Amino acid sequence: MTHGNIFVTDHECYRNDKNHESDYKKMFYPKKNYIEPFFKSPCPPALLSREWFDAFIRVHRHSTQFDKLILYHNTDHDQEVIFQHMDYSKQSIELHLRSRGKIEIRSKVSITTKEDLSLAYTPGVAAVCTEIGLNKEKSYTLTNRANQVAVVSDGTAILGLGDLGPEAAMPVMEGKAIIFKEFADIDAIPLCINSTDVEEIIKFCKMIEPSFAGINLEDISAPRCFEIFERLEEELSIPVFHDDQDGTAIVTLAAIINACRVTGRNIEDLSVIINGAGAAGIAIARLLMHAKVKDVVLVDTQGAIYEGRPGMNSIKQGIAAITNRAMHSGDLQSSMVGTDVFVGVSIGNIVTPAMVEGMNPSPFIFAMANPEPEIMPDLAYKAGASVVGTGRSDLPNQVNNALVFPGLFKGLFVSGIKKVTPEIKMAVATSIAWSIEPTRDHLMPTAFNKNVVRNIVDVISNPDEKRNYANNEPEELEELEELVNSLLN
Amino acid sequence: MTHGNIFVTDHECYRNDKNHESDYKKMFYPKKNYIEPFFKSPCPPALLSREWFDAFIRVHRHSTQFDKLILYHNTDHDQEVIFQHMDYSKQSIELHLRSRGKIEIRSKVSITTKEDLSLAYTPGVAAVCTEIGLNKEKSYTLTNRANQVAVVSDGTAILGLGDLGPEAAMPVMEGKAIIFKEFADIDAIPLCINSTDVEEIIKFCKMIEPSFAGINLEDISAPRCFEIFERLEEELSIPVFHDDQDGTAIVTLAAIINACRVTGRNIEDLSVIINGAGAAGIAIARLLMHAKVKDVVLVDTQGAIYEGRPGMNSIKQGIAAITNRAMHSGDLQSSMVGTDVFVGVSIGNIVTPAMVEGMNPSPFIFAMANPEPEIMPDLAYKAGASVVGTGRSDLPNQVNNALVFPGLFKGLFVSGIKKVTPEIKMAVATSIAWSIEPTRDHLMPTAFNKNVVRNIVDVISNPDEKRNYANNEPEELEELEELVNSLLN
Repeated sequence: MTHGNIFVTDHECYRNDKNHESDYKKMFYPKKNYIEPFFKSPCPPALLSREWFDAFIRVHRHSTQFDKLILYHNTDHDQEVIFQHMDYSKQSIELHLRSRGKIEIRSKVSITTKEDLSLAYTPGVAAVCTEIGLNKEKSYTLTNRANQVAVVSDGTAILGLGDLGPEAAMPVMEGKAIIFKEFADIDAIPLCINSTDVEEIIKFCKMIEPSFAGINLEDISAPRCFEIFERLEEELSIPVFHDDQDGTAIVTLAAIINACRVTGRNIEDLSVIINGAGAAGIAIARLLMHAKVKDVVLVDTQGAIYEGRPGMNSIKQGIAAITNRAMHSGDLQSSMVGTDVFVGVSIGNIVTPAMVEGMNPSPFIFAMANPEPEIMPDLAYKAGASVVGTGRSDLPNQVNNALVFPGLFKGLFVSGIKKVTPEIKMAVATSIAWSIEPTRDHLMPTAFNKNVVRNIVDVISNPDEKRNYANNEPEELEELEELVNSLLN
Repeated sequence: MTHGNIFVTDHECYRNDKNHESDYKKMFYPKKNYIEPFFKSPCPPALLSREWFDAFIRVHRHSTQFDKLILYHNTDHDQEVIFQHMDYSKQSIELHLRSRGKIEIRSKVSITTKEDLSLAYTPGVAAVCTEIGLNKEKSYTLTNRANQVAVVSDGTAILGLGDLGPEAAMPVMEGKAIIFKEFADIDAIPLCINSTDVEEIIKFCKMIEPSFAGINLEDISAPRCFEIFERLEEELSIPVFHDDQDGTAIVTLAAIINACRVTGRNIEDLSVIINGAGAAGIAIARLLMHAKVKDVVLVDTQGAIYEGRPGMNSIKQGIAAITNRAMHSGDLQSSMVGTDVFVGVSIGNIVTPAMVEGMNPSPFIFAMANPEPEIMPDLAYKAGASVVGTGRSDLPNQVNNALVFPGLFKGLFVSGIKKVTPEIKMAVATSIAWSIEPTRDHLMPTAFNKNVVRNIVDVISNPDEKRNYANNEPEELEELEELVNSLLN
């Protein structure tokens, strides 16, 4: 046994070898208080279930207390490495430890003299408060509010890790905050909150409204996130955006637009399969229907979603009514047959080369599960894909939400627009796509491409203007115009 | 009429001259929507009341839409200038407009390369989230939480301006944030919230707990602030502090300690009168009783507070039970007779020289109403005061909360202490006082004195250690030790 590795036997083995259970516990789980829930309830049968094993792997994949997870099949001699840590896990923890998180508050004014204090604080500040008391809109010019976004999460759907609680969501929210600042000079304040109740989260966002120009919901699990978002969109006077829904949907549409540009295909001809019907999957389906793709079929753990399928929540019923017009009812593999685009917002390694081969010729594959894609790009290409993207920054063609939210909020703040309509989403996707001249291996702009935020702000502020993006040749501009028109009309 | 001035007739005149009412409205109140409530409910008798007039002045004193308020008595020819704007009102508004508020978010890590993003954000950050998911305490080392305070206000008691709403509270909260950063390198996040309901504010603070190491309540009106604070102290696992209560109480005790040092008197011999029984007055009374002053009499708009006085809320009943042992029941003037210290946390110009003359010889006067003190220092000295302090930064001997909160939170964060006990408050007051060698005209350290935060942190972290403050001579150290002991035992 290599020190720092973890060994787990698969279910069969456990079932056959109960006597070893307590030994395994001691051997494998030094942090007893955390691991306990997996064993306790209900134990031992559920302990040995596929759900338990999946949950175990999901949680431990990113824990640096182990370097490697090895699964022993049946006999102790047939072993398989389930995961090995990426190098940057440890590096990232070191970075966070060293800097103690990633954000800080800075003063925009000097306070080095008594006079400075008299103007920035009492007694001078009384006049500023009074001005705002007389006209609340002045909070947008006399405080930092106009540039301030709250990033609100309850920690129930952190990346692909699931519900780890609000404290554990903070590293992601701080990450978003520094991306907001770096790419759009927006001040984002992470608020990870101690409630998963729909009404309480809505109330919370309404309470902080006076301090912010916008609210970015983040990593709140489905289906609660839909109700929270929709209610807030109605009840707040400032814009609200759920990145896991619309951020992902917009950047996915941008990727499909550029895949069309690279391959010379039309978005209206594409039949799309989406695996994963959480926040992202539902929002992607809605936006692609707005963008007039031929058809969308959403697949969840029960298979294809079709109108009238038993046991669906109201969100799924709603999406079933506008997608899957052929009423397909099979599993993922059978649903993929005859489609042109695969969009994965589910879990790693669930798509096989054979499943890609079953699609229409030269499909687009966007396997965005994090950190393991639904299928690795090399396998997808071998199976006939024409364009492949993932969510990974270390692979080509990253389909990255960070392309969306900085520019989108900047655009909303600059224009004063309060609601992100489907038209805005489509225009933003188009702006992102047309910020570069794509190729098969450089399908998307990087987060560092300064055109992206500028183009998004531009299209939100002046939706009817003709675009003249950097890097675009005249004939492309015509093409772009047509595309924008086809999307907007 | 000078352009930009406002003219108001006093009540008598209004009452005698009803026909002019609508003319006055048009002439004097360009921003109708704001002024309306004063006229509407109930109008006209209350319109002409002293309360209305006081409220009007309170609100307009800091509005820069008028330079000056002139009151016409009875006939139009007998006029009196009620206020004229301080110069820094306009300067402060210009400063805030120019910088668009005072705070911003900054990144503590570099994000200029794809590699940076992979460590600060996905996929590297997944490992950091997982670590915290396994052990929530790690949010204190892997995020900025350990250095982060929420400054929470509902805007109901902004400075001396009253209830102007949460938007109008933001300039003060941003001011506190930059003071936190400048003097203690703490990251304070202003959250001005849209509810004045006790339960909702408590719930709000409990919801943000996972994101912060402490909560600073600010400008929440009495008596709600007492219940909110006490409930949160019980129900939160992070420290909570209400600056208007304990910040003011601590710095007032520090001022009294140094007045004793300057005049050679003992705190136990002092009989104290406090005018104003809001958040600050109640907290000062409680802390001074802990510090064993001879007696405290609190005075509100009904006169002295004594046990059994009719119509008091439970907070006042509580303080009545431990103060005013002589059961004095008169007005402010009669209550001041025979006392040694006046503490004003009420409204401007309410104390006359004659009232100071009625006190014991050589009294201490701390007239801390903002921006107009209860009595101006020159008048108080003329009437026999030995030491005079105010809340004003432009007068000598400012008694300034900003001496307390940066060091106090730093001390709590460094020591891990969760609750600010009376013993800690007294030790902090002593630390502030002993950060300088006081004189009659330099009674208190300035906010820029770096000893203050250091000494506060020191005394909170090591409460039992002997002090060796900068600037202190050996004989003073003994004296200090005695004082600390007398306060702590």
